[in-house]
Amino acid sequence: MKRLLEWWEGLCKGSATLRFVDINLRGVGQVMFQDNPLSGLLFFVAIGWGSIAAGMPQVAIGGIVALLAGTLSAQWLRVDAAGLAAGLYGYNAYLVGLALGTFLAVSPLWWLYVALGGAVSVVATLGTANVFKTWGVAALTAPFVLTTWLLLLATYAFTAIDGSGLPMSAEVVPLDASVSNPLAFGDFAQGVLKSISQVFLKASLVAALLLLAGLAVNSLAAAAFGLGGAVVAVLAGHLLGAQSDLVTGGLMGFSPVLTAIAIGAVFYKPSPRVAIYALVGTVFTVIAQGAMNVALAPFGIPTLTAPFVLVSWLFLLPRQHFERA
Amino acid sequence: MKRLLEWWEGLCKGSATLRFVDINLRGVGQVMFQDNPLSGLLFFVAIGWGSIAAGMPQVAIGGIVALLAGTLSAQWLRVDAAGLAAGLYGYNAYLVGLALGTFLAVSPLWWLYVALGGAVSVVATLGTANVFKTWGVAALTAPFVLTTWLLLLATYAFTAIDGSGLPMSAEVVPLDASVSNPLAFGDFAQGVLKSISQVFLKASLVAALLLLAGLAVNSLAAAAFGLGGAVVAVLAGHLLGAQSDLVTGGLMGFSPVLTAIAIGAVFYKPSPRVAIYALVGTVFTVIAQGAMNVALAPFGIPTLTAPFVLVSWLFLLPRQHFERA
Amino acid sequence: MKRLLEWWEGLCKGSATLRFVDINLRGVGQVMFQDNPLSGLLFFVAIGWGSIAAGMPQVAIGGIVALLAGTLSAQWLRVDAAGLAAGLYGYNAYLVGLALGTFLAVSPLWWLYVALGGAVSVVATLGTANVFKTWGVAALTAPFVLTTWLLLLATYAFTAIDGSGLPMSAEVVPLDASVSNPLAFGDFAQGVLKSISQVFLKASLVAALLLLAGLAVNSLAAAAFGLGGAVVAVLAGHLLGAQSDLVTGGLMGFSPVLTAIAIGAVFYKPSPRVAIYALVGTVFTVIAQGAMNVALAPFGIPTLTAPFVLVSWLFLLPRQHFERA
Repeated sequence: MKRLLEWWEGLCKGSATLRFVDINLRGVGQVMFQDNPLSGLLFFVAIGWGSIAAGMPQVAIGGIVALLAGTLSAQWLRVDAAGLAAGLYGYNAYLVGLALGTFLAVSPLWWLYVALGGAVSVVATLGTANVFKTWGVAALTAPFVLTTWLLLLATYAFTAIDGSGLPMSAEVVPLDASVSNPLAFGDFAQGVLKSISQVFLKASLVAALLLLAGLAVNSLAAAAFGLGGAVVAVLAGHLLGAQSDLVTGGLMGFSPVLTAIAIGAVFYKPSPRVAIYALVGTVFTVIAQGAMNVALAPFGIPTLTAPFVLVSWLFLLPRQHFERA
Repeated sequence: MKRLLEWWEGLCKGSATLRFVDINLRGVGQVMFQDNPLSGLLFFVAIGWGSIAAGMPQVAIGGIVALLAGTLSAQWLRVDAAGLAAGLYGYNAYLVGLALGTFLAVSPLWWLYVALGGAVSVVATLGTANVFKTWGVAALTAPFVLTTWLLLLATYAFTAIDGSGLPMSAEVVPLDASVSNPLAFGDFAQGVLKSISQVFLKASLVAALLLLAGLAVNSLAAAAFGLGGAVVAVLAGHLLGAQSDLVTGGLMGFSPVLTAIAIGAVFYKPSPRVAIYALVGTVFTVIAQGAMNVALAPFGIPTLTAPFVLVSWLFLLPRQHFERA
Repeated sequence: MKRLLEWWEGLCKGSATLRFVDINLRGVGQVMFQDNPLSGLLFFVAIGWGSIAAGMPQVAIGGIVALLAGTLSAQWLRVDAAGLAAGLYGYNAYLVGLALGTFLAVSPLWWLYVALGGAVSVVATLGTANVFKTWGVAALTAPFVLTTWLLLLATYAFTAIDGSGLPMSAEVVPLDASVSNPLAFGDFAQGVLKSISQVFLKASLVAALLLLAGLAVNSLAAAAFGLGGAVVAVLAGHLLGAQSDLVTGGLMGFSPVLTAIAIGAVFYKPSPRVAIYALVGTVFTVIAQGAMNVALAPFGIPTLTAPFVLVSWLFLLPRQHFERA
C-alpha cells in the first residue's frame, strides 16, 4: 500500500493534471478525515455505485461539479498550499454537491446552483477554520451544513429551483409508539452498514463496504471506530425507541459514525480513556440527531451532519484533557 | 458564620468523603453564583422541600443523580482543581437533573438519561468556558441550557423516553388581551418570591425564602440584587402586559433575577452606575424572556435560563466599561 | 465638498452642541458605512421624506428617539472617543428605531420601548465588536438585528405593545409559481432603487436617489457598488424566481446592496478580484435572503439585515486573502 502511494506521488510530481486529480481525491477522502488519494478513490467509487444503483446519478454528478468548483475556487482564492494539497478545501464542496443532487431536481439553473454552492463552501471553510482555530478545533463539516441549509431553505422562496425532494415541513409532536420497535434487531447489520454509507447521503450496503475499505487502507483505527460507532448508534437508537426505519436506514447513525471517528481516532490519540470519551460522544450524537430532527421539522430541511458538528465541537473544545493525535 | 465555615473546612481537610460532599454543595450554591457550602446546603434543602411539597420528589432526586454524575465526570476528566473545588463543574449538572425531573416521566431509561445529561453538561462546561474566556466572560448556565434543550427535544423523536411533562408545541400568535391584567398587583409578593424559586424550577414560597437565606449567608449584595431583580421583573412584566399567571408564577422573573445578581453583584463591583446597568439588563431580560417564550413555542420546549444567559453575555461582553468584581 | 466639511468641522470644534449633532449625523451615515456628516444628513432627509410620504412619520421619529438614546447611552458608558466620534455607536440604534416605528403601533409605552432598544443596541454593539475583533471583522448591523428581533418577538408575549404591523406567522411551504414571473423586467428600475431605500426600511424612489447622493458625496466607489449590488440582486432574484412583488419592492435586494458595498468598497481595497468576490457574495446574499424569509416565517418576524450580516461575515472572515481597505 505504501509503495503504491509512493508511485502515485511520484507520478503527481511530474504532472499538474495529476496533482489536480490528487487534490480532488484527497478532498473526497477528507469527508471521513483521510488525507489519502486511495481512500478518496474508494469513497468516490462507493458514491458512484450508490448513486447509480439508486437511479440517481445526479447525486454523484452533483458531487463532482461542486468539488471541481470548490477546488478551482480555493486556487483562485490563493488558500494555503498545504491545506489545499491535503484536500481540506474539497470535502465540504463535495458534500454540498451530493446534498443538492439528493434533495433538488436537475434543471439548467441547478448546475449553477451546485457550482455556486461548491464555491461558497470554500469561503465558508476559510471563515469557519479562521474562527475555530482560536480554540484549536477544526471546521469539521460545518461549512457544508451552513452553505447547504441556506441553499435548501431558499428553494422554498424560489420557483426556478425545485426542492421537491426535501422533507415536508411538519409540526413538532411526540413520535407515535407504533413506528418504533426497540426490541427488533432483525435489521441490525443493515442499520450498521447504512449508518456508514449515509455519511455520503446513500443507503447502500456495497457503498458501505467500499467506504470501510477506504478507511482501512489509510487507518485501521478510523475503520474500527467508524464501524464501532455505527454499532453503538444502532443499539442506542433502538434502545431509545427511535423510529425503526430511520435506524435501519442509517439515518440515526451517520452523524454518530463521524463523531466516533473524529473523537476516537483523528483528533485524539487512541487510548482506553479516549475510547470511553468517544463512546459517550457517540451516544450523545444519537440524542442530538433525534433533537435536531425535531428542531428542523417545521422548516422542511434535513439535519445533514449538524449533530456530528455540534457534538464533536462540544467534545473537542475541552481538548486539553486528552493527548492530541 | 465565618467560624462555622472554618470549622467545616477543617473537617474537609481530613476527609476525602467530606471534601466530595463539599464540592457538591458548592456546585448547588453556584447555581446562584455562591461558592459556599452553606449556601449550597440551604439551596439543596429549598429544592428538596419544593419538590416534595409539589408531589414531585423526582425533581430533587434527578438533581442529585445528575450532580453526582457531573462531579464524578469532572474528576475523571481531570478538570482544574480550583474550579472543581469551587463547584464550577456542578451547577450545570444539578440544573440538568432538576429539569429532566420536571419535564420527563421516570422510567428505567430516565435514570441513565439523567446521568448522561449530568456528565455531558461537564463536557459542555469545559467547552463553553474555553470559548468564552477568550473575552473574559463566564459560561454561566449555557451548558445546562444547551445540554437540556437537546435532551428535551430528543424526547419527541424517541418512544422510550416520556416527555409528556413538556409544553405542547404551539403556533406563534399574538397574546389574547384577556390573559393579562397589567393593573392587578394583588399577587405581587407571590410573583416576586416565585421568580426566585423558579431559578431552580420550583414555584414555592418556602423554597424562595430558603434561597434568599442561602444568598444572604454568603453575600448580602447578591440577596439584595436577587430580591430587587425579582421586584423589577414582576413590575416590568405587569407593565408590558405579560400573561398574568406567568408573572405571578415566577415564570417571567427567574432569568431576570439571575441577570440582576450576575451584573449587579457578581461580575462587577457593586456601585450606583453598576446598579443602573443591572436595572436595564434586568428589564431587557424580561423582554428576552417574552421573546424566547415565543421563539420556542413551535418546538414544545421551555426557555430554561437562556434569556439570562443571552442578556448577561450581552451586558458582560463589554465589561471593560465597569470595574470588575 | 472637502471645504464644506472643513468649515463644518471648524464649527464643531467650538460647540459641544454641534459636536453632538455631528456624532448623530455620522451615526446615520454609518448605516451605509459612511463616516461623513453630509452623507448622514442626506440619509436623514431621505428617511424623513420616505416616512412622511408613506404616511408613517413615526418611522423617522422612532429613528431619532433611538439614535439619541443610543448616543447618550454610549456617552454614559464611556465608550472609546474615536468610535463615538465616527458614529459607530449610532447606526444600530437608528435602525432599531426605524424598525420599531415600522412594525409596532405608537402608544405611550412605545416611546420607552424605542429608547430602551436604542440604549441596548449600544451594549450589543460593544459586545459584538469585542467578540468579532478577535478575527478582525466588524460588528456590522448584527447588534441592530439581535436587539430588534428580541423586541419584535416579545410583542407576541405582551399585550401592552402592539405588533400588529408584523407579518403573520406562516407555515413553510413551497412558493406558488403564480407569484413569480422570472421574465418580467418591467419594474426593473423600481426594484433596483427600492433595494437601496429598503436598507432603511423604506420603499421610496426619492429616498433612494438621496441615499445614492449621500453615498457619492463621501465615496463614489460605495455608490457604484451600492447601485451595482442592487442591479445584481434584482437580476438574481428574477432569475431564481423569487416572488415578483418582493423583488420589485426592494425586499430581496436591501441586504445584497449592503453586502456589495461592504465587500466591494469598504472592508477590501476595490480591485477586479475583489469585485468578482463581491459579486459572488451579493448573489449568495439573495439566496440567504430567500432562505431566511423561509426560516423566519413560523416566527412572524422579518429578517431585517440578517442575510447581509451572515453572508458578509462569511466573506470577510477569510479576509487575509485580499488586500485590506
